[in-house]
Parts: sequence; C-alpha cells; structure tokens
Amino acid sequence: MIKTDILIIGAGPTGLFTVFEAGLLKLKCHIIDALPQPGGQCSEIYPKKPIYDIPGFPEILAGDLTKNLLEQGKQFEPGFTLGERAETIEKLEDQTFIVTTNKGTQHHAPVVAIAGGLGSFEPRKPLIENIAYYEEKGVEYFIKDPEVYRNKKVVISGGGDSALDWSIFLADMASEVTLIHRRNEFRGALDSVEKVSKLKALGKINLITPAEVTALYGNKKLEGITITKEDEKILLDTDYFIPLFGLSPKLGPIANWGLEIEKNAIKVDHTLNYQTNIPGIFAIGDVNIYPEKLKLILCGFHEATLMCQAAYRIINPGKRYVLKYTTVSGVDGFDGTRKEAPKVVIQSIK
Amino acid sequence: MIKTDILIIGAGPTGLFTVFEAGLLKLKCHIIDALPQPGGQCSEIYPKKPIYDIPGFPEILAGDLTKNLLEQGKQFEPGFTLGERAETIEKLEDQTFIVTTNKGTQHHAPVVAIAGGLGSFEPRKPLIENIAYYEEKGVEYFIKDPEVYRNKKVVISGGGDSALDWSIFLADMASEVTLIHRRNEFRGALDSVEKVSKLKALGKINLITPAEVTALYGNKKLEGITITKEDEKILLDTDYFIPLFGLSPKLGPIANWGLEIEKNAIKVDHTLNYQTNIPGIFAIGDVNIYPEKLKLILCGFHEATLMCQAAYRIINPGKRYVLKYTTVSGVDGFDGTRKEAPKVVIQSIK
Repeated sequence: MIKTDILIIGAGPTGLFTVFEAGLLKLKCHIIDALPQPGGQCSEIYPKKPIYDIPGFPEILAGDLTKNLLEQGKQFEPGFTLGERAETIEKLEDQTFIVTTNKGTQHHAPVVAIAGGLGSFEPRKPLIENIAYYEEKGVEYFIKDPEVYRNKKVVISGGGDSALDWSIFLADMASEVTLIHRRNEFRGALDSVEKVSKLKALGKINLITPAEVTALYGNKKLEGITITKEDEKILLDTDYFIPLFGLSPKLGPIANWGLEIEKNAIKVDHTLNYQTNIPGIFAIGDVNIYPEKLKLILCGFHEATLMCQAAYRIINPGKRYVLKYTTVSGVDGFDGTRKEAPKVVIQSIK
Repeated sequence: MIKTDILIIGAGPTGLFTVFEAGLLKLKCHIIDALPQPGGQCSEIYPKKPIYDIPGFPEILAGDLTKNLLEQGKQFEPGFTLGERAETIEKLEDQTFIVTTNKGTQHHAPVVAIAGGLGSFEPRKPLIENIAYYEEKGVEYFIKDPEVYRNKKVVISGGGDSALDWSIFLADMASEVTLIHRRNEFRGALDSVEKVSKLKALGKINLITPAEVTALYGNKKLEGITITKEDEKILLDTDYFIPLFGLSPKLGPIANWGLEIEKNAIKVDHTLNYQTNIPGIFAIGDVNIYPEKLKLILCGFHEATLMCQAAYRIINPGKRYVLKYTTVSGVDGFDGTRKEAPKVVIQSIK
C-alpha cells in the first residue's frame, strides 16, 4: 500500500505543479497516470509543439514544459504509479481514501486531487479479431522502453507523428522495422516524413502502403501478422506489432466515483478550493468545470495552488498556515536541498 | 486623450500578462504605472532576486520574469504611461471611463483593470524642511535616465541595494559621486558592498558615514547640501541629491474611486471574472481580495485571463468568443507578426 498526503490522479502540467505547491506546505504527493511517462498530453500527444500562453514563456515546447515542471518539483520527491489507471476509490471511516488501479496497486491518502485533464488517454485499437489475446504478448499500444525492441522484428502501424517518429527511432535498434499505413500519405512534421523517406531508401525501414494489418497469429505469443494490401495478402513474421492510431481521452472509471459530472467534466466549488461534492476529493485543471471555466494550463496552476491550501487544512486540522514567499523564505526540499536568494550582507565599507 | 480597449493600472507581472491574454482576444491594452519602468516590484524592488514558484521555472530572477512577460506581449503593442500615478476616474454616460494621472494625462477605455499590486510605490522621503521645493529641481527619488547625471555632481543617500548599485553605476559617469548613509553598515548584496569599497579606495566614490543630509540650498534649483556627521556640519556643492530610502506601497487615490475596499485591497466577484462593485472595473493580482485569495503572481495570471473574457463581452456585446489554443491556432500580433507551430505536412513517402 502506497501512502501519501495528496494522491494526484493525472501527471499532466497541473498534477506536476501540485507537487511543488504541496511541497511548500510540507505535504507529500504521489501521482497515478495511465500513460507510461509524466506530462500527460504534453508528453504523449504534442511534446514538440510550442505553447505560447504559459505566462513568462513567449514560447515553450510542451515537452520542455513537462521537463521544467518535473525539475521544479523534484526536491519534493513525488512518487509515481505510471502506466496504470485509477480504477476504484473507497472512503474509509476516518475519511481517508484508498484508490486502486487497474493493475491492483493500492494507494492510501487523506486527500485526492483529480488532475485528469480530458480523461485517461486510451489508445485507439485496430479492429482485429483476436488482438486482445496478444496484448502484452507482442501487441503494444505505447512504447515504454525502446530497449525491449533491440534486435527484434517490429511492425508499426499508423500514419501520424508517433508512427513516423518511432519508426525512425527504432530503425537503428530493431533488427527489422516495417511501417504500415492504410494510405500512401503520411501526416506529420516535414522533417519526420523526410527522414522516413531516407531510411526507406537505405533499406532500414520497410514501408508497406496502402495496407492494413488484418490478422495476427502465434502460439501463446505473437509470431506473425497478415497484411492486406489492396487485394493481396502478405504474411510477415514479427516479434512485435505496435499500432499507433492515436489516443482518445475518456473520463473512464472516475465517472463512477459518485462525483457530480457535467459536460464530461467534474463539478467543483470554484468559490473556495475546487473541491468536488465529495469532501476530500478535489478536481483541478481541464478535468473540472465551473462558471467561466477556461481549459488552460495556467488556470490549472492556480487551481492546484488554492487546492493545496485546503489539503493542508484537512491534513493539519486546527493548524494555521501563513503564506510565505519563496523569494523571501527559499525552498526546502524533502531531499535535504535548499534553494534561496543570495544572502544580504550587513557590513561597513572600509 | 489616449484611447484603448483595456486600461490597465499597474505594470507588474499581472498587468503585463494581461496584454498577452487580451491580445489573443484582439483587445488592445494601455498600462499606467507610477514607477518609471514596467515590472512593478519585480523591477524596482527585487530585480536580481530569484522567484521559485512561477510554474515552469524552477528558478527565475524577478527582472528576467519582467523581461519575458514584456517579450510575450510585445506583438500586441501595448501603450505605456510610466512615471505617472492614476489619480481620478470618471464614468461617462456610455459606461466608458476616463482615467487621469497626477500629471494630467487622460486615458479613455470601456474596461479598466486594476493590477495595482500592493499599491503605487511612493518613495520614502527624508525629513528635510524645504525638500518639496527642490523636487524635480535637483532632488530625485528615482533614477529614470542615468544620462541626466553625466558629468554632474551627484549625492546619493541610503544604505541598501539601490543606493549601492546606483553609486556604482554612476561612479564612471558623473563627475563626482558622494554616498551618504546614517550608519557605517550597509545592507546589500556582498558583491555590491565589495564594489563600493573598491571604488571608494580608487577615489571614485566619496563615502560619508555615519551622516545625514540635513539641509538643501540653492537659488531656483539645488546647488548644495549640508551634511551632518556626528557633531560636524559639512557643506557640499552638488547638482543632484538622490535619497534612496526605499519605497512604501500605498493604495493611493484608487482608494477614493468608490470601490469596495477590505484590508487595504479591492473586493471582487471571484465567482466569475474578478469584477469590482463598479461594472467595467476589474481588480486582478495582489490588489484584490476574495475568500481564499493568495497573493501569488501565478494567481494574478489566472485572474487576468478570466478578466479578459469578461472584457471581451463588454467590448463586443452579443458576440461569442470560442476559446482557441495557441498551440493549435498560433498567435497573430497586432504588429503583423505570426507565431505558430511548425506546419504538419501530408505527403506520401517515395
């Protein structure tokens, strides 16, 4: 059982910044996210795209924002349960919560902050009859650790940036990379399209278009696939089949937690601290809704900050917290580090 | 008469970010600030101090945050009335406002956003009988343009960073720099204290401590001062006397605008858009107060963003604004520039 002060659901920018604000209040955080790495959409969907409306950054790539937020919070040593989806919640008699993931990992905390963005991102799956059987037996929808594919045969399917970029990345690592797309045209960064074109010419990527994977076979684990190219059927041996057809956000199991939902988002009391109808559960960032709500990252930062104050009072009943400015007080990490402004000296001039 | 869409009072971080968010909605901003440069406290009081709680910046100097925010908003071409204090406001029959500064500059806008921080920063003045007479005739409380002091005799008084830093800066520019402080001990960055010490040894700064300026004389303009050092009186010819005794924030004339005030801050409707009790006047950032208010820069950013939506509806009645993401839609400047994510190409791979 993982124990923490604030259990955050969602490792997007709002969830990551919560770690920092909670840390200033000496509260510890643990984050659950269905994606295999932190950053939410910013890492998974558009890491190389610029965002122009983060205050103080005339331009920042979504991936760099994620990196910065991880760096900003790291001295508060957040825990992570990644690649697992928060599935059920139980409120105990002492008003604390147990949240269990789809893989059975249990988390115990007095405060739960849902920073779930548009929901948990579920991969769009190809319609192949027995695909579920081969999941985690050769069929993967995310690339968590590219090392797994070293010297293996890999088939990637899809026509967007993810399919292009992973084909490029694995071209030097896997023993064979086949990229299959149902159209001749790919949709992605010019740079990526050109690189795949070059790797194809060098024989490092085997490109099959317009085509689809229509069957999977193998005994206990994936051994090969059937590719349908126009009227032709091609059999191909492979160790892995990775369909990268994009992600579609779903509020998912959270929708069944007894929270008030409106327009696929969680209603909160925005007049105070973004608490939901269940005391102790908060919703911050794009996942919540209130009058005049704007689904912007910068609003999530504000909501996270106010929420942490409420969490402090739940966790430290009766204790009064006086706001301190980081410029004046510095930042004391849980890891023993201290950041502070250069000291002012008081001395006479000789 | 200066005309604009949103008249912002206060050029601190919240006011500066408003320019950007308003610009996305095609609204033009003009900013009034009593200080001679944008940035508010961040520029005037602690430009070299690090802030640790701006989301996405593990550490940023207050001066750099100001620079970044100016850069982020510059394509929306904000106007500035600097070194003047917003003094009076008048609501016209058509529900628009005229704001006049202490120097008589008039501004006309349908929306006023008070982003006044802790108030307008007024210099602490030394208690010298006829000092008011010499103001702008040799006595200055801010250094707006250092060039004014080239080849002039300058007396600076004070014991903190401003007094130290300006003495260093002017040492090579003025014909004579005298630094006077009522104690022997200075309070500032180690680096600055050491530099002044060195410049004193080189004869470039004339240091008189513990001492005070106790009288000013001159016919029509400042010509000299009397320094009292323990029991001794020293007469010194000078062109300028610059007491840098710090700034003290005052809500100032805004307190008389008919706004609801509580704890020296302006009450706002935080359940919607931070509007004050006077429709069309908003208060954002540290200057406002509402239940659970936190006086943090990041909260000002959020408040500014929601306020701009309300301003849009006042300025464009009946028109509906649909939120666009900068990552998707890019940013179109009023100066003809366009920022956007690299284009996605759709092409077949040869």
